[in-house]
Amino acid sequence: MRFVDQLDQAAQKNKSLLCVGLDVDLSRIPPKFLNSDDPIFLFNQEIIKTTQDLVCAYKPNTAFYEMYGIYGISSLTKTIEFIHSLNLPVILDAKRGDVGHSSTAYAKAIFEVFKADATTVNPYLGHDSVEPFLNYHEKGIFVLCLTSNIGFKDFQAVGEEPLYISVARHVKEWNHYGNCGLVVGATKPEELKEIHDLVGDMPILIPGVGAQGGDLEASVKYGGKHPIINASRSILYAADPKAEAMKLRDEINRYR
Amino acid sequence: MRFVDQLDQAAQKNKSLLCVGLDVDLSRIPPKFLNSDDPIFLFNQEIIKTTQDLVCAYKPNTAFYEMYGIYGISSLTKTIEFIHSLNLPVILDAKRGDVGHSSTAYAKAIFEVFKADATTVNPYLGHDSVEPFLNYHEKGIFVLCLTSNIGFKDFQAVGEEPLYISVARHVKEWNHYGNCGLVVGATKPEELKEIHDLVGDMPILIPGVGAQGGDLEASVKYGGKHPIINASRSILYAADPKAEAMKLRDEINRYR
Repeated sequence: MRFVDQLDQAAQKNKSLLCVGLDVDLSRIPPKFLNSDDPIFLFNQEIIKTTQDLVCAYKPNTAFYEMYGIYGISSLTKTIEFIHSLNLPVILDAKRGDVGHSSTAYAKAIFEVFKADATTVNPYLGHDSVEPFLNYHEKGIFVLCLTSNIGFKDFQAVGEEPLYISVARHVKEWNHYGNCGLVVGATKPEELKEIHDLVGDMPILIPGVGAQGGDLEASVKYGGKHPIINASRSILYAADPKAEAMKLRDEINRYR
Repeated sequence: MRFVDQLDQAAQKNKSLLCVGLDVDLSRIPPKFLNSDDPIFLFNQEIIKTTQDLVCAYKPNTAFYEMYGIYGISSLTKTIEFIHSLNLPVILDAKRGDVGHSSTAYAKAIFEVFKADATTVNPYLGHDSVEPFLNYHEKGIFVLCLTSNIGFKDFQAVGEEPLYISVARHVKEWNHYGNCGLVVGATKPEELKEIHDLVGDMPILIPGVGAQGGDLEASVKYGGKHPIINASRSILYAADPKAEAMKLRDEINRYR
């Protein structure tokens, strides 16, 4: 099944546009997990079990698994398998991008080894660096466009045609197989509208509503037909992650 | 020891500016390795043993290890340990870049888990995405500037001030700890001169002289005080990798 269909199916079933980011930091998880043989996976598993009927997708970020070396990679693999066992899609947030033959290896790693349903890619190296990902027609490829951090000012927002607009315009052209999406931070509501008006209804992954304080109403309103609202730390490390996820899902739904 | 000093030490000892890229593809290595329990590591080990007195550094690209999952990551770890046992520096070509707390996790993975001496980073997300790497003062941080692939035209070369110039200018500003470098493809000799004139003598990692057909003479001439000339496939898959590395090292030295 195509990623966008998996996404819509989960969004309908769970009445949710919420994606939970699985960015595990062992220094912040409940101590009960630390004595087990795989604290990262067991923590993720509990988060996933308690939120599985509240989300449209999960988004593990590779950085937080690589930080724990081979053990982290093993936990990531098990986490993805567990999410799939619940018939929910996985966006592996890897932000890769390299010259063609190296990007081909990355795409193989992400889609064939880790078996993610979608991923994020960095556009800096241009079309031939993104193409090996696009060649997986059933998968979802979210290209970084306008990010939620302060550093967006350094390059993304610069130029007579700002770089993020140029990226959005190119991704629209690259979308021959209908498998492209964009990453736009919730901290940039006006630009989100501008980008959506430019690219039409491709899925937009919108991080930054939780700990980073983005604009939830605008994210839902301007996020097009498939907005994916991501929250990570604000749910993972809440006193009651299930309650926090439900609250956010319901708040999102009020703006739909 | 600081990366740039490790690099200069190896360059002096081996009279070499050559970096060998360890981008292993199991479908291209000699069949004798395939029946072993760790073909990737054993192939790398043979390449490293035969070229150890001909290089200033080795550059494994993470893509080619991630492609083989946990086994690949394990081979990468062993490869880095083996290079260090010979007292040579490792540039882990990972092209990472993410929002601050995720980049912090990536920097930890690369410098503390994999124990690389230097890495490559992608500038798209701006200063706060690169800063967690820069905070490792002893390490080398090569920021992608102008890449050797055709896709450089899509974004890097665009703008009244082209993006690659803006990146070079910013990296010069970010270089408070003297640990920055740039990646500039050997396929762009004039721009290499322009970039070097702008940033002065920070190390420049120059891929693209081998299989991609870049300009070797200009790379050495305009690469500043610490040019690092990388070749990967043209050495790894040569009939005689040692002879090929020696030929390239000597050719580089003729232009110094």
